[in-house]
Parts: sequence; structure tokens; C-alpha cells
Amino acid sequence: MDPRTDDVAVEHFMDWLRDAHAMEQQAETMLTSMARRLENYPDLKLRIEQHLEETRQQARLLATCIERRGGDTSSLKDLVGKAVAMGQGLSGMFATDEVVKGAMFSYAFEHLEIAAYRNLIGAARTVGDTETQQVCERILAEEEAMADWLERHQDSIAARYLELSRVPGAQAKR
Amino acid sequence: MDPRTDDVAVEHFMDWLRDAHAMEQQAETMLTSMARRLENYPDLKLRIEQHLEETRQQARLLATCIERRGGDTSSLKDLVGKAVAMGQGLSGMFATDEVVKGAMFSYAFEHLEIAAYRNLIGAARTVGDTETQQVCERILAEEEAMADWLERHQDSIAARYLELSRVPGAQAKR
Repeated sequence: MDPRTDDVAVEHFMDWLRDAHAMEQQAETMLTSMARRLENYPDLKLRIEQHLEETRQQARLLATCIERRGGDTSSLKDLVGKAVAMGQGLSGMFATDEVVKGAMFSYAFEHLEIAAYRNLIGAARTVGDTETQQVCERILAEEEAMADWLERHQDSIAARYLELSRVPGAQAKR
Repeated sequence: MDPRTDDVAVEHFMDWLRDAHAMEQQAETMLTSMARRLENYPDLKLRIEQHLEETRQQARLLATCIERRGGDTSSLKDLVGKAVAMGQGLSGMFATDEVVKGAMFSYAFEHLEIAAYRNLIGAARTVGDTETQQVCERILAEEEAMADWLERHQDSIAARYLELSRVPGAQAKR
């Protein structure tokens, strides 16, 4: 690759790293709100709390990758990301079936993250950043595990919601 | 199930059907915008156009299921859905890497749909609506096929984007 060509790939790679960092901040906002509100879904609450810890660590790891390359993590993209996350959090919160919608949105969001890390792994390979590649492979495995958990528990969450909805006075939605 | 209990499940079931209908309208808006804008990704454009046809048919099938049960499809939820879709379309359109972000968002959105139809299939079984259950099983298979296609082509889309970015004057982003 000539230097100019190399620069273009590196620039996109850095953009994607910053996007991923913003995405993990979105994830933290959403997961925090979900974990705090859940009452009658202890397994889901526990798994979300566990993934919240992973998410915070992922954001730190990404920040380290960005800073090692001389970039910084405070950008407009981060702000946009936070606004989107807030909107999503609010819309989920007012749903009459927030636990069901929350699980659905989380499942979709995990796949957004999975796609992002697959792109980043490819781009890290292209620009020859082995350390970032390994970080992204580690994070990808955590996102896939979370998506897999949500997939395996989705039916029971929806069934429990329909079940609790029939119990007078029960808080079915969270 | 006593009649009151039955009513609660049916009510949620109808809500989820209307949500799914709104979701397919969102999907139609997003896919139309993506297909129209793509220039240098012919395989992706073709697959999106194919899924756009499926999506329109899915919305019609869902409307039929809703109307057969005496419901109607014009609701506030539909409006909210359209607003969200517009926001997503716009945000993707202004991204410097819109094809990459578009593929990522589509992959995530497919999983939102997959989760929705899994819930609907369970709920249709609970309330004993075999016809709707079969419609949702058919739609689920189409969504899974689209998600699978996107997963298999994601790497080549991102690689082509990085590749085209290096060609002076080429339109890499769409």
C-alpha cells in the first residue's frame, strides 16, 4: 500500500473504532436503565448486570486502542450516540410490555455490535493492528454470548410476561 | 383459560401484531431508501430489492391477520414507527460510510424482526390462532434468510468499501 492509500484505510479504521466506542456508551445507558427497572425477571436482570460490566470494560479497552493510535474518544459521534440511546431508552420505558420490547431491542443491538466488531476485525487486519484485532475478537465473543443468551431465553421471557399479565396486581412489564 | 384471562393474552397478541405491521412499514421505508441510493454494490442492491418485495407482502399478510380478528392497522404506533424509520434513514444517509452502516443496521433490524416473529408465534399458539401462527412462521423464515445473507456478505461489503475508498473519484459509500 502506498502511504496515501494506507492513510485512507487507517482513517476509516479510526472512525469505526470511535463508532464502536460510542456504541458501547449507548449500550451502557440502555443496559443500566433496563437493569435498574427490572423487578420480576431476575435471570434477565442478572445477565444484563453481568453484560453491563463487560460493556464498561469493552468501552475502556476501545478507548485504550484509540488512544494508543493517537486518537481521542470525545467526538460528535459520541454525542449523537448518547441522544439515540436516550430516545431508545425512553421509548422502551413507556411501552406497556417493556420487558418484551427491551429483550427484543437488546437482541437487535447485540447484532449491531456483532456486525461492528466483524468489520473492525477485518479493518484491523488490513491496517496491521494486531493488538486492536485481538481486543475486538475478545469483545465479539462476549457480544455473541449475550446474543445467544437472549435468543435462548426470549420465549420464556415472553411467556412469563403473558403469564404475569393475567395475575391481578402483578407488575408484568418489568 | 377463563374469558378475562383469555382477553388479556388476546390483547397483547393484537398489540404485537400491530407492532409487527408498523415494523414492516419501517423496514419498507429503510429498504426503499437503501436500494434507491446504492450504486456500486449490485449484489446488495438486488438482495435488498428482493427483500423489499417480501417486506411489502409481509405487511399485507399481517394486515389481513389483524383485520380478520377485527382490528385495524392505523394506530399511533404506526406513526411512531415511521418517525423512527425516517430518523434512521437520515442518519444512515449522512454517514461517510453509509453502505457499511446500512448493512449493519439492516442486520440488526432483521434480528429485531426475528425476535418479534418468535414472540408472535408463541402468542398465536397461546391464543389458538393457527392461521396467524403459520403466517408468522413463513415471515420468520424470510427474515432469517435475509439475516443469513447479510451475515455471509458483510465482510465483502466492508472490504469493497475500503477498496473503493482508495480509488480516486469512486463513490465508495453507496
